[in-house]
Amino acid sequence: GDFARIDHHRKLRTGFPEVIWGPGKTPEQIIEIMQTMRQNHPTVMATRIEPEVYEKLSAKIPDLVYYPSARICAITSQTSPPKSQQTITILTAGTADLPVAEEAAITASLCGFPVKRLWDVGVAGVHRLLSNWHLIAEADVLIVVAGMEGALPSVVAGLADCPVVAVPTSVGYGASLNGLAPLLTMLNSCAAGVGVVNIDNGFGAAILACQILRVAQKQQTAP
Amino acid sequence: GDFARIDHHRKLRTGFPEVIWGPGKTPEQIIEIMQTMRQNHPTVMATRIEPEVYEKLSAKIPDLVYYPSARICAITSQTSPPKSQQTITILTAGTADLPVAEEAAITASLCGFPVKRLWDVGVAGVHRLLSNWHLIAEADVLIVVAGMEGALPSVVAGLADCPVVAVPTSVGYGASLNGLAPLLTMLNSCAAGVGVVNIDNGFGAAILACQILRVAQKQQTAP
Amino acid sequence: GDFARIDHHRKLRTGFPEVIWGPGKTPEQIIEIMQTMRQNHPTVMATRIEPEVYEKLSAKIPDLVYYPSARICAITSQTSPPKSQQTITILTAGTADLPVAEEAAITASLCGFPVKRLWDVGVAGVHRLLSNWHLIAEADVLIVVAGMEGALPSVVAGLADCPVVAVPTSVGYGASLNGLAPLLTMLNSCAAGVGVVNIDNGFGAAILACQILRVAQKQQTAP
Amino acid sequence: GDFARIDHHRKLRTGFPEVIWGPGKTPEQIIEIMQTMRQNHPTVMATRIEPEVYEKLSAKIPDLVYYPSARICAITSQTSPPKSQQTITILTAGTADLPVAEEAAITASLCGFPVKRLWDVGVAGVHRLLSNWHLIAEADVLIVVAGMEGALPSVVAGLADCPVVAVPTSVGYGASLNGLAPLLTMLNSCAAGVGVVNIDNGFGAAILACQILRVAQKQQTAP
Amino acid sequence: GDFARIDHHRKLRTGFPEVIWGPGKTPEQIIEIMQTMRQNHPTVMATRIEPEVYEKLSAKIPDLVYYPSARICAITSQTSPPKSQQTITILTAGTADLPVAEEAAITASLCGFPVKRLWDVGVAGVHRLLSNWHLIAEADVLIVVAGMEGALPSVVAGLADCPVVAVPTSVGYGASLNGLAPLLTMLNSCAAGVGVVNIDNGFGAAILACQILRVAQKQQTAP
Amino acid sequence: GDFARIDHHRKLRTGFPEVIWGPGKTPEQIIEIMQTMRQNHPTVMATRIEPEVYEKLSAKIPDLVYYPSARICAITSQTSPPKSQQTITILTAGTADLPVAEEAAITASLCGFPVKRLWDVGVAGVHRLLSNWHLIAEADVLIVVAGMEGALPSVVAGLADCPVVAVPTSVGYGASLNGLAPLLTMLNSCAAGVGVVNIDNGFGAAILACQILRVAQKQQTAP
Amino acid sequence: GDFARIDHHRKLRTGFPEVIWGPGKTPEQIIEIMQTMRQNHPTVMATRIEPEVYEKLSAKIPDLVYYPSARICAITSQTSPPKSQQTITILTAGTADLPVAEEAAITASLCGFPVKRLWDVGVAGVHRLLSNWHLIAEADVLIVVAGMEGALPSVVAGLADCPVVAVPTSVGYGASLNGLAPLLTMLNSCAAGVGVVNIDNGFGAAILACQILRVAQKQQTAP
Amino acid sequence: GDFARIDHHRKLRTGFPEVIWGPGKTPEQIIEIMQTMRQNHPTVMATRIEPEVYEKLSAKIPDLVYYPSARICAITSQTSPPKSQQTITILTAGTADLPVAEEAAITASLCGFPVKRLWDVGVAGVHRLLSNWHLIAEADVLIVVAGMEGALPSVVAGLADCPVVAVPTSVGYGASLNGLAPLLTMLNSCAAGVGVVNIDNGFGAAILACQILRVAQKQQTAP
Ligand SMILES: Nc1ncnc2c1ncn2[C@@H]1O[C@H](COP(=O)(O)O)[C@@H](O)[C@H]1O
Ligand SMILES: Nc1ncnc2c1ncn2[C@@H]1O[C@H](COP(=O)(O)O)[C@@H](O)[C@H]1O
Ligand SMILES: Nc1ncnc2c1ncn2[C@@H]1O[C@H](COP(=O)(O)O)[C@@H](O)[C@H]1O
Ligand SMILES: Nc1ncnc2c1ncn2[C@@H]1O[C@H](COP(=O)(O)O)[C@@H](O)[C@H]1O
Ligand SMILES: [Mg+2]
Ligand SMILES: [Mg+2]
Ligand SMILES: [Mg+2]
Ligand SMILES: [Mg+2]
Ligand SMILES: [Mg+2]
Ligand SMILES: [Mg+2]
Ligand SMILES: [Mg+2]
Ligand SMILES: [Mg+2]
Repeated sequence: GDFARIDHHRKLRTGFPEVIWGPGKTPEQIIEIMQTMRQNHPTVMATRIEPEVYEKLSAKIPDLVYYPSARICAITSQTSPPKSQQTITILTAGTADLPVAEEAAITASLCGFPVKRLWDVGVAGVHRLLSNWHLIAEADVLIVVAGMEGALPSVVAGLADCPVVAVPTSVGYGASLNGLAPLLTMLNSCAAGVGVVNIDNGFGAAILACQILRVAQKQQTAP
Repeated sequence: GDFARIDHHRKLRTGFPEVIWGPGKTPEQIIEIMQTMRQNHPTVMATRIEPEVYEKLSAKIPDLVYYPSARICAITSQTSPPKSQQTITILTAGTADLPVAEEAAITASLCGFPVKRLWDVGVAGVHRLLSNWHLIAEADVLIVVAGMEGALPSVVAGLADCPVVAVPTSVGYGASLNGLAPLLTMLNSCAAGVGVVNIDNGFGAAILACQILRVAQKQQTAP
Repeated sequence: GDFARIDHHRKLRTGFPEVIWGPGKTPEQIIEIMQTMRQNHPTVMATRIEPEVYEKLSAKIPDLVYYPSARICAITSQTSPPKSQQTITILTAGTADLPVAEEAAITASLCGFPVKRLWDVGVAGVHRLLSNWHLIAEADVLIVVAGMEGALPSVVAGLADCPVVAVPTSVGYGASLNGLAPLLTMLNSCAAGVGVVNIDNGFGAAILACQILRVAQKQQTAP
Repeated sequence: GDFARIDHHRKLRTGFPEVIWGPGKTPEQIIEIMQTMRQNHPTVMATRIEPEVYEKLSAKIPDLVYYPSARICAITSQTSPPKSQQTITILTAGTADLPVAEEAAITASLCGFPVKRLWDVGVAGVHRLLSNWHLIAEADVLIVVAGMEGALPSVVAGLADCPVVAVPTSVGYGASLNGLAPLLTMLNSCAAGVGVVNIDNGFGAAILACQILRVAQKQQTAP
Repeated sequence: GDFARIDHHRKLRTGFPEVIWGPGKTPEQIIEIMQTMRQNHPTVMATRIEPEVYEKLSAKIPDLVYYPSARICAITSQTSPPKSQQTITILTAGTADLPVAEEAAITASLCGFPVKRLWDVGVAGVHRLLSNWHLIAEADVLIVVAGMEGALPSVVAGLADCPVVAVPTSVGYGASLNGLAPLLTMLNSCAAGVGVVNIDNGFGAAILACQILRVAQKQQTAP
Repeated sequence: GDFARIDHHRKLRTGFPEVIWGPGKTPEQIIEIMQTMRQNHPTVMATRIEPEVYEKLSAKIPDLVYYPSARICAITSQTSPPKSQQTITILTAGTADLPVAEEAAITASLCGFPVKRLWDVGVAGVHRLLSNWHLIAEADVLIVVAGMEGALPSVVAGLADCPVVAVPTSVGYGASLNGLAPLLTMLNSCAAGVGVVNIDNGFGAAILACQILRVAQKQQTAP
Repeated sequence: GDFARIDHHRKLRTGFPEVIWGPGKTPEQIIEIMQTMRQNHPTVMATRIEPEVYEKLSAKIPDLVYYPSARICAITSQTSPPKSQQTITILTAGTADLPVAEEAAITASLCGFPVKRLWDVGVAGVHRLLSNWHLIAEADVLIVVAGMEGALPSVVAGLADCPVVAVPTSVGYGASLNGLAPLLTMLNSCAAGVGVVNIDNGFGAAILACQILRVAQKQQTAP
Repeated sequence: GDFARIDHHRKLRTGFPEVIWGPGKTPEQIIEIMQTMRQNHPTVMATRIEPEVYEKLSAKIPDLVYYPSARICAITSQTSPPKSQQTITILTAGTADLPVAEEAAITASLCGFPVKRLWDVGVAGVHRLLSNWHLIAEADVLIVVAGMEGALPSVVAGLADCPVVAVPTSVGYGASLNGLAPLLTMLNSCAAGVGVVNIDNGFGAAILACQILRVAQKQQTAP
């Protein structure tokens, strides 16, 4: 259809193919885009897909896989991409941040990167974090997901020997301003080495983390 | 003068006398208010007094004392109020938060409460805080002062067995929005037991902390 | 489950056990957390529980008690904690502020502190407040709940001889900005001795008030 | 000059002549406007005039009068307008609100309306207000000026039997957001009968109050 | 019930009885308040009542009258209050502002003041306003209701010889920010003599306008 | 220098050469850019140049012309570009909006378009505008400059038979929020046919108006 | 009805008839306005009409046409207005911006102007835009529609030799703030020649673009 | 002094030593911190140092080096750290963004990473960027600095095969809101792989970029 101009060379240019953002697209549009893309790409994925939308999509795309806690749909070919030697470690401050963290985890997995998960280690009980210090100290790259006051990335970045991708979430109420409060917290981090993405943007965090690990991969394969 | 209607009974009602807020008052007005108040109160204090204003005030009030890092002026009688057995412990995240913390410390001292100070223990190096855990664990009431991301009160409240008064500061730049960012952080604290005051309001934090210790004092003296 | 890392030592560290925040958790997650926690704590509570969620929880936890106006669920053992000698006095400005005030009242009760309630004494008819002056003058600690312009805590703090915990509510419309207006009012209070919590955060206000009364309790039991 | 298109008929249409707003005009422009206006109007006034600007104006307009605390300049003819039988009562919450209140008071006086002043009766010591209840109960129209939390107009409107014009001021710091906080407070007043004007707009408050008293004057002179 | 502390003397103090604000109250609470109030007041009214709430109320209060476009319910005794000789003229900028304008009109009528209505005279076709200039020129007091850019009160106040009460509405989208844009417009009006109330607050505008006309009434009946 | 990468083909692409934005550049940088650009362009201009900066520039560029009320500097060759047959009509609401309007006027003139000016016709005295209706009715394109409530473009667009470019200014105080209030007003205009530019952006308004007139010019010269 | 004061001469004054804005009007009101307007205007249109509202309208107005993706209803006479020789070129950044772009496209068509559409050429794959450079270079006037970061109008305006009308959309989440982020982006465009309209305001963008092309039409028909 | 608690192990934990943030510290405090730190670290640096502060510092620390365009001071030992094989490529949108970009460049250099600079390639003339495509395509990690609309990082990230660190600057005026507008633009980037830091935070961007390159370095040296 005319409604979409698929960016077929994005993988060539940037290392990652275009990913379909679900909201504001009709199921018919998503189906048409997916079917066009699968002709050129081993993996095609769409984010922010609610279960009832998935039902409509899978009626037309039988091999579509759904990851409910991540709200992601994907078509993946048998021959998955070669796995990275390095890992993406993902932390959440609370249980309610899980959907955003899973969006990051599934995105990274579909891009061929191994993921470690550590949920519910927010700063209100800092020992939960400290007793997992080894995970942070050994990490190659960290994604830290937090709502409410969003303080976790600052504490983590002060302990970590690697880049930290900070994801504010809309978890909270009142003065959390739908995620603006943790967003500001993360941008103002006293600890350096933190890159921030949009509120609830688990997808973008994963691509940034993957992109970071690709720097090392390219370095290795360089002559 | 007609410009001020001094609240002579505030100490009777609330336990603490009125304190003069300097900004927006002429030196002449401050002098007149101080001289009227000293007739009824052993201690008279004014906050947010810049050095050049102090010069003008002390020309007319020779026994006026100035605390430069706290920007407070005070007249104190010899017979100071009986000291509390309990202490106010004040923490800052960074060095630049010091003026606000000193405003709290001097206010509390002038109200007759002992103060312990612990500066520059922000979350970017959380071991600085943890190596002072005993100070937090033993505290009667805590005042925690932080700018930038303002994450310190959350971490402290998760460790402390007492009320935490959180003071955001305007230290920072850009997305700190002159202190709005740490203010929001503190209001959204996942750790409970935190009461927040206005940006840079060291004075208000001290009065709240003193008011908290007075609850215990009244309890003791009750029959 | 992996989704939650319960902070079993929070009561040891801070005097109060972890409390489950309902939003963003599935009923299954809440049930699992509650059942794990009850093994270690005499009282287990969850806030922001809508009636239909309670129905699902009580099917699995038969002894779960629901406080509908407070939207709180709790499991409480027979042997309740020893009652405090001091009381938490809770005021609201209007009738619509009641759910937030009840969240505070039930939380405080479940923590073992007696509560006095005074509803609908907002500043538009200040005599309603003044005719209850004795309640304010005698209070040990006050929680003041108000939406719309949120002026009540300022007036109360000018009359009270004890700490005031101010809770803005999202009651109002238009320029109340979902509670930001009363939040700002309370932070700018001319009367000192006011600690502010997040919009609609009755729970946090109660824990702060309880923490304040514990200062006195500890003082008493100290040698 | 072409730079100003004086609205000579405004007095005919609205009852009050145009008033010159000083900021953003050069002294030469203000002088030219004043000299043109005085040919048609017995009183010509300019607001927001700093002392150094007044010096320049008075060099060219020798009979110009300056009201420093109100920052107003005026040319007034001998034959002043007939005085109203009704009075405008002006209250401030604090001493620092005085310049805004004086802008209102001088504007009203120059428009021929008598003014009563009551300064520094803010809600932190509500007895200061209550002990002046008779002034409020007898008022024809009230202007209430307040910064910081801006709670005074709500309390006054709950006591007053007449319209209340509320003026927020930029007095305060931090979360007062340069007067936005008291502005929101006043707009959200639970007490009805309150009309709000811009931050620091003493001039606009006075014209509204005068316009209100003119309703009664017109009623009287109607056949 | 304890949930409401009715302000029975408000009419004595301020000239108008308390009015029940519907949102956040259960139908049972509203019924109980109405039945208590009707024992002391000839007219009892409640605002922001949706049709389905009215159904529940009228089942218990058979003589309750509903004004659907104003979303107001009222009990009125036969002996209505004496009518004012002066009139409140209400203007709207567009058709969609009608519910707010009707809230003002019905409130004023129930308070005993005659109302003139002029709808849909916004500034995009300024001749619609100018061809009704006589209505503005003859008005005793004006209520001007506008959403979107909210420019109408400025234009009207430049033409009117009486006070203007400006009511911003939440009509609009995008950059109207739910009524904040017209609210700011009205507060910044270059034309003086404008008092602003909260977004969509037709009720408050009416009480202010009535209060203004009472100044003239009191003047007349004064000896 | 490396600090600037001059866009020499912008005139070819867009019809107008690059214009130097003064703030944040050192005088030395501006001089170097101007001297490079003059080799390719008959007219070189810089905006937001304060008088003291102009002094430094003219020491090195003797033929530099300064337009003080517009704060623009320009080098113009003798052979000015062919004049347009159509005119840009510029209106301001107040006198204080003049610098922004002059920035627009001088920019348009330097681009070869004739300008008509009409200052101080704001909506508080709408007859000032209506008595110039013919100017609006005959206009080819209008630039309307207004601060404070920013209502003028709406009224003008309801009268005009041509595109309206709206420029909000930072003239005002308090709730004008440094020009955000008139910006929002203009974006919410009920009258269609209005394009808005940044606060105080007289330059951008002029380029848009010139670009609009070029559409007609191109049409004429097309075969 | 009294609820609407139709601006029958708007077409005479401004070139375009009044268009009905659907939200906040009852179907009955819209029907009455449409039937009154059709007596004077060959084309009558209403925007923001949801399908279920259209059902109700078409029951009374059988010849009403509905454009679902644009959410526009229109009555059009057989004799359509003479077509313009110049074209409006409309671009979107993404697929989800389509409804706003169609609102613009249908409005322009109904006003008699030909439209070219180019969807999904956002800056994340800038080659999609560059490979359509000829469309931009040849355009008479451009409407550029974008949500999320809203960067497309800046890039386009740097390439285009004609006016650019920029339309921010509410497409996005989190820090897009319902369209405020792309609105700010467009207002701050470094490329000049951009006029911005309200968020999601495809209608307003079309009228501005049509108004721009009319300048050229008038020029041609001038003697 | 007690005012600072230097985090001597930060380099061990995070790979980079603590860096002194200049604002809010007295020159005496900075000198004392620098002299303490130099005992343990080969390089000691301070950011946001104005020239007059540098004068005071260098009087006590003769070997202090100043980088004026970056506003950085540093003490560096002869034996500089081993150079990375990979490079940090830094781009700016305009000339005025240079100080922030230089803060990043000097920080990275002092940390031992080579830097490539490309200034003034903003999107208003996108060919300036495209003609440097090879620099982007070959980059290991990119820092993209932009004020005003801040669109450059989106365009770059759509072309780059590596992580992009986006730095908004406070360059701009009006609706740029001191850098909030480009900050929001960058957070909403449609192109993935972008990590955002605080407004004007060149330092933080550099540390994040260095941290990213260290991932590759660690990978290489791993067995
Ligand atoms: N202090 C003030 N605050 C608000 N408006 C004012 C003030 N002083 C004068 N004005 C109004 O500002 C307008 C004058 O604007 P200008 O044409 O720029 O002089 C007049 O309509 C006055 O009614
Ligand atoms: N529509 C309304 N908008 C604003 N205030 C109202 C409205 N209706 C009633 N009120 C006021 O709200 C207060 C009642 O609050 P409550 O105690 O919650 O019923 C009274 O003081 C009324 O004057
Ligand atoms: N989608 C739209 N967005 C903005 N304005 C519109 C829209 N549709 C119609 N209008 C304008 O809204 C005004 C109608 O407002 P109303 O009197 O409430 O019908 C007319 O002046 C139209 O020019
Ligand atoms: N220009 C800068 N912007 C942001 N953070 C900085 C900057 N310079 C130093 N820092 C960080 O600020 C912290 C020091 O804060 P302080 O204790 O107040 O000196 C350190 O953790 C640095 O990593
Ligand atoms: Mg948890
Ligand atoms: Mg430090
Ligand atoms: Mg009530
Ligand atoms: Mg005072
Ligand atoms: Mg209409
Ligand atoms: Mg003027
Ligand atoms: Mg797309
Ligand atoms: Mg440049």
